[in-house]
Amino acid sequence: MYREKIKVLDCTIRDGGLINDHDFDTRFVREVYKALSAAGVDYMEIGYKNSKKLFSPKEFGKWKFCDDDDIHEVIKGVKSNTKISVMVDVDRVDIEDIKPASESPVDMIRVASYVKDVDKAIYLVNHFAEKGYETTVNIMAISRALDNELNEALIQLEKECKAQVIYIVDSFGALYQETTEFLVKKYRSILKTKEVGMHAHNHQQLAFGNTIEAIIHDANFVDGTVYGIGRAAGNCPLELLIGFLKNPKFDIRPILDLISKEFISLRNKIEWGYIIPYAITGMLDEHPRTAMALRKSDKKEDYREFWESLIASDLD
Amino acid sequence: MYREKIKVLDCTIRDGGLINDHDFDTRFVREVYKALSAAGVDYMEIGYKNSKKLFSPKEFGKWKFCDDDDIHEVIKGVKSNTKISVMVDVDRVDIEDIKPASESPVDMIRVASYVKDVDKAIYLVNHFAEKGYETTVNIMAISRALDNELNEALIQLEKECKAQVIYIVDSFGALYQETTEFLVKKYRSILKTKEVGMHAHNHQQLAFGNTIEAIIHDANFVDGTVYGIGRAAGNCPLELLIGFLKNPKFDIRPILDLISKEFISLRNKIEWGYIIPYAITGMLDEHPRTAMALRKSDKKEDYREFWESLIASDLD
Repeated sequence: MYREKIKVLDCTIRDGGLINDHDFDTRFVREVYKALSAAGVDYMEIGYKNSKKLFSPKEFGKWKFCDDDDIHEVIKGVKSNTKISVMVDVDRVDIEDIKPASESPVDMIRVASYVKDVDKAIYLVNHFAEKGYETTVNIMAISRALDNELNEALIQLEKECKAQVIYIVDSFGALYQETTEFLVKKYRSILKTKEVGMHAHNHQQLAFGNTIEAIIHDANFVDGTVYGIGRAAGNCPLELLIGFLKNPKFDIRPILDLISKEFISLRNKIEWGYIIPYAITGMLDEHPRTAMALRKSDKKEDYREFWESLIASDLD
Repeated sequence: MYREKIKVLDCTIRDGGLINDHDFDTRFVREVYKALSAAGVDYMEIGYKNSKKLFSPKEFGKWKFCDDDDIHEVIKGVKSNTKISVMVDVDRVDIEDIKPASESPVDMIRVASYVKDVDKAIYLVNHFAEKGYETTVNIMAISRALDNELNEALIQLEKECKAQVIYIVDSFGALYQETTEFLVKKYRSILKTKEVGMHAHNHQQLAFGNTIEAIIHDANFVDGTVYGIGRAAGNCPLELLIGFLKNPKFDIRPILDLISKEFISLRNKIEWGYIIPYAITGMLDEHPRTAMALRKSDKKEDYREFWESLIASDLD
C-alpha cells in the first residue's frame, strides 16, 4: 500500500529559523533530532550555510551558518538513520567553506533558487555534488514563475544539473490543487532522470492538501515541519504527513511527544499558523513580507484595510 | 471562469453552536447575517430545529430551536439576498412545529442523517418539501459508511426523495482528496437529478482542500464557516472559500471585517481549530468526542498517551 520511494524531509529548524533569526538552542535542536530519528524521518534540515561575510554571527543564531561543529553537538550519541540536510541560497554561500562530504556531518545540500537564477543554482549543485553530497534544487516562488521560463529552466536542469531532486516551492502559499497537479506533471514530463519534491506553505491551509496532491501525481520528496512551524503561516505539518503515509517505518508517537513537550510552549512565544493576513497574501499570490510587517504593527488585526492596501497597490 | 451553479452555505452559527450550546446572542448573529449578506453568501444556516420536549430551552441557547420569532429578530431591516437554512436531526424534530414555508423566514431545511437512517430522512425531507421548503439530506460520518449500504441509500434517495441536494459530510475530518474524489463521483453517478454538496471538517487541515476537490469533481453546494469555527477542529473557513471562488458576486471584505471585530476575541473564549487530539481522531477516523473530553481534562496536551489509548481501544 505504500510507495517506498517517498522520502520525508523535516525542515523544522531551517524554516522555523526564519521566524526567530535561527536562534534555537542546541538542547532544543537535539530534541527535534532525537524525535525525528525515532519517528523514522528520512532527512532533517538543520539550517542554512550562509557566508559570515554577509551575515554577522552576532546578529543571528548558529543555524544560519550550520558549522560542522554545531551539527556534531546535535547528533552526537543519538542512534539515527536520519540524514542531515542544509540549505544554501544562491549568492549567499562561500563555497570554499563547504568541506568534502566525507569530512562533514552533512549528507544533503539543497540549493534554493528563483527560476531566473537557475544557472547559478546548477553551478552550486554541481560543485557540491562533486564534493560528494546529495543535492537538490528548490525552485522558489513557483506560483509566480512564467511558464516559458520555467520550462526552459527545467530542461536545463535535466540536461546540466547533477541534483537528484528538483522541488516545487510554493513560497507564497498560493497554489491550489489544480496548479499543484499541473506543476508536478510538468516537472515529471521534463525531469526524466530526477525525482520531484514538494515544499508547501500553509497560508491558505493547503500545505498538507497540496503535498498529498503532489504525492498522488508522483512527487517522491516531501517536506514537513513539526506542528507546521515556519515563516508566516508555516509549512505542511509533519505529524499529518506521517499520519497519512503508510510506510511502516514511520512512527508518529515521538513527534506527538515532541509537540507536547516543546512546541506548544514555543508557539506561545513565536507566531506562525493560520492568521488572516497570511491567508490574504496567499490568495493574492504575494510574498508574506507585508503581512509579517502588519503582524508587528498595532494594526495587526485590521484585515480589511490590509486587503485593500494590497489590492490598491496592484493597480497600474 | 466561474461556475454559476456553485452555492455557498455558511453554517457559522449552526456548527459553531455545537461548541457553545447554541448560545450566541442576537446582536452577534445579526452581525454575522449582515456580513454574509454583504459578502453575497447564498445561505446562512442559523441553527437546529430541535424538539423542546427533548431539549430544554433553559439548558441551551435559542439556536438549538430556531423559533421563527428569533430568526425575525436577526434578519429584520437588513438588505439581503442570503437565504436562511436550519438543520434538523432525524428523531429530534417535532414536524408539527414546522410551519408552511410561506409563513416562515426559513427557506431551506437540511436533514442530517446517518446512512442507516435514510428512510427517516426521506420521510422528513418529503414532508418539508411539501410544506414548500428547499431541502437537502446531509449524510453524516461518511468516512465510516460501508460502500454497499451507501450505494443503496443513494439509489433510494435518487428514487424517493425530494431533496435538491445530497451532502457528503466528513464528520470526523478523516477524508483525504482521493476518497473525496471517489465519493463525489459516486454521488454524481447515482444522483442524476440532484446536486452534490460538501461539508468538510478540518481535523487534518483538509477541510478547504477537500472542498476544492469536491468542486473540481462537480459538487455545487459547499459549506463554510467564518474563521473555520465549528465543533472540534471546525470547518472549511468561509473566507478561504470566498477567496478561491471566482464568482464576482462574492465580496470577501465584509467577512474580513467580521473576523477582525468578532471572531478574534471569540476564539479567545471558545476553542476550535488545529489542535493535535482532533488531528489524531481524524487520522484514526474516530468521532472527536474523545478528543473533546481530553481538551477539558488536565491531560489536554498529552498527545502520545491519547494516541495510544485510541489505538489500544481499537484492538479486538
